[in-house]
Amino acid sequence: MSEQHKPPNKRTTIYHVALEAGVAPSTVSRAFSKPSRVNSDTAQRIRQVAERLGYRTNPLARALTTSRTHMIALVIADITNPVFAEIVRGAQHAAADAELTTVLIDAQESDRLERAALERALPTIDGIVLASSRMSDSAIRVMSKQRPVVVLNRAISDVPCVVTDNPRGVRRAAEHLGELGHDHLTYVAGPEASWANGIRWRSVLEAGMELEIRVRRIGPFSPTIEGGEMAADELRRRATTAVITYNDQMAIGLMRGLARLGINVPVDLSVVGFDNIVAADIVTPRLTTVAAPLFAEGAVATKHLLAMINGSRGHTGQPMVLPVRLVVRDSTGPRKTEHRPPWAPAVNAPPPTNSILLAGN
Amino acid sequence: MSEQHKPPNKRTTIYHVALEAGVAPSTVSRAFSKPSRVNSDTAQRIRQVAERLGYRTNPLARALTTSRTHMIALVIADITNPVFAEIVRGAQHAAADAELTTVLIDAQESDRLERAALERALPTIDGIVLASSRMSDSAIRVMSKQRPVVVLNRAISDVPCVVTDNPRGVRRAAEHLGELGHDHLTYVAGPEASWANGIRWRSVLEAGMELEIRVRRIGPFSPTIEGGEMAADELRRRATTAVITYNDQMAIGLMRGLARLGINVPVDLSVVGFDNIVAADIVTPRLTTVAAPLFAEGAVATKHLLAMINGSRGHTGQPMVLPVRLVVRDSTGPRKTEHRPPWAPAVNAPPPTNSILLAGN
Repeated sequence: MSEQHKPPNKRTTIYHVALEAGVAPSTVSRAFSKPSRVNSDTAQRIRQVAERLGYRTNPLARALTTSRTHMIALVIADITNPVFAEIVRGAQHAAADAELTTVLIDAQESDRLERAALERALPTIDGIVLASSRMSDSAIRVMSKQRPVVVLNRAISDVPCVVTDNPRGVRRAAEHLGELGHDHLTYVAGPEASWANGIRWRSVLEAGMELEIRVRRIGPFSPTIEGGEMAADELRRRATTAVITYNDQMAIGLMRGLARLGINVPVDLSVVGFDNIVAADIVTPRLTTVAAPLFAEGAVATKHLLAMINGSRGHTGQPMVLPVRLVVRDSTGPRKTEHRPPWAPAVNAPPPTNSILLAGN
Repeated sequence: MSEQHKPPNKRTTIYHVALEAGVAPSTVSRAFSKPSRVNSDTAQRIRQVAERLGYRTNPLARALTTSRTHMIALVIADITNPVFAEIVRGAQHAAADAELTTVLIDAQESDRLERAALERALPTIDGIVLASSRMSDSAIRVMSKQRPVVVLNRAISDVPCVVTDNPRGVRRAAEHLGELGHDHLTYVAGPEASWANGIRWRSVLEAGMELEIRVRRIGPFSPTIEGGEMAADELRRRATTAVITYNDQMAIGLMRGLARLGINVPVDLSVVGFDNIVAADIVTPRLTTVAAPLFAEGAVATKHLLAMINGSRGHTGQPMVLPVRLVVRDSTGPRKTEHRPPWAPAVNAPPPTNSILLAGN
């Protein structure tokens, strides 16, 4: 390869290429950034000259002119929650197929941090997948005006969304508990800013109505092992024999807290989680849980984002819904024959009532 | 605030600010990017004019001119390994103090993916923390010529490194096993590209020599729960009563595989992990492990990186070493009185020999 046209000791610039190819610098730029807008013979001549002179495009400068960086951001709510690991793997798989790099932003369960990090990263990315965002709907809509955005585990009109079938998951869990003889259950709530938490609780209410199971809610608690442990203390003051938690981490913490209080799972209390994280299968007792298709969630959302980056209109209106299934393990069992478990409040306490359901909350 | 100096319907640029402040555009640029290089009265006047005119710096353009993006990259080896979550938290904590955003790159245990992602992200970041990199030393050195780099869990000359005290951790684990009567132990190896794996095995050899414990190694296995389960199959063909695994995930998988084979931990076999991830405390039996100060690892490495970004020379030569401690739980116990565990090879098999130690490997 000849170096004769390149000034010695200088980096080849777009101007050298333009001079040598006999075109305007802006044509050189377009030949690399938007080749469809340049005559194909001209574009080929420019590429040949560029290669001969050793011209390299600067990715950051290219980003300025073309707004393509070949990086996407995947925002997760909390890196310490293993539920996100499989979602990330699915997103990476889809992004790698399109030769895109995925950078991760951990929102640390804070809408403020989530926004600040995204605003900073925005100029360097082509699009965003928000997994379990804690931002407001309006903040997400603003973001989606600046870059293609796909939202996971949440439904927002005007923004493409991928959700799992929470109502069906809760329904299957409630049916399972009903078959085991449980006639009232407690939902242990996660973060109030979580869309999934809201729909899971509403689904518990609906399932309770249909299956004639009395339901109540305690919380909100932090969606962590610690949050679940705290819920154990509150739960022991209630008469309940079955629990559905917002997620697996809380279920694991809850079982740990209950064990410390001498309450046996599943003999005294049945526990169902949500997500089917790896740990659900390694704790004792092994956790019954509503399994979400985590890898598919990440992959579907990312594929949709890629299509939008390439010019497709996003799928808005109804969210895309992915199926779930109930994985029955060892943390659920038959209700004890006596109505009141041995650790429930004293005999004179009023019987459990479905006050929250009656209030229509 | 007056808008009189700003042309109507036009974005305020650096040129408007320069004109109004009576300085060169490059001085305006420096006032924002390298304020220490501008007379402080001038810098203050420029900032006041900029604020009055509603001038906003473009982070990407700023990146081009000043090479500061206020983002750093933290590269982790595998997002599905929870050991990285606390490291990330520590890094985020240190970065937030300096008002920097941390983006995460998951190398997926692949040196190829790690390099490709970093090369793409490089123009948009101010510096890099590599946590358990799978890249070669030379690739890391090349990277460190382009951006400030701090390496975690590895020692490379010429590049600042933060490691934990692996020799002491192994030594404490071996002493604990020795006190329980174990006179030979097996190291279950992790990835060969992992620096930590190499030093942990060498430390096992040294501790064995000093404490008169015969040692051997099996593996390498994948540093995952699945990898540990595979090790269980191989381990049952060996006569050993004590094991140290490369990490906690492998230890958890190993215990699960052993349970399936009817081998009781700790009665038949004692198991010690490395890291002290959250799951170590929730499995049955609870895992004895060498606890690394994960949060501190992330924080110390990031603080050092920030100092380098701000112009300090990196600390090279000897790595910075952080202390470890042994957390004794329920997966370790006294060696059974009969020398040969019930599941060991038949009577005529040769006694275990310390062949690897003798080979000086």
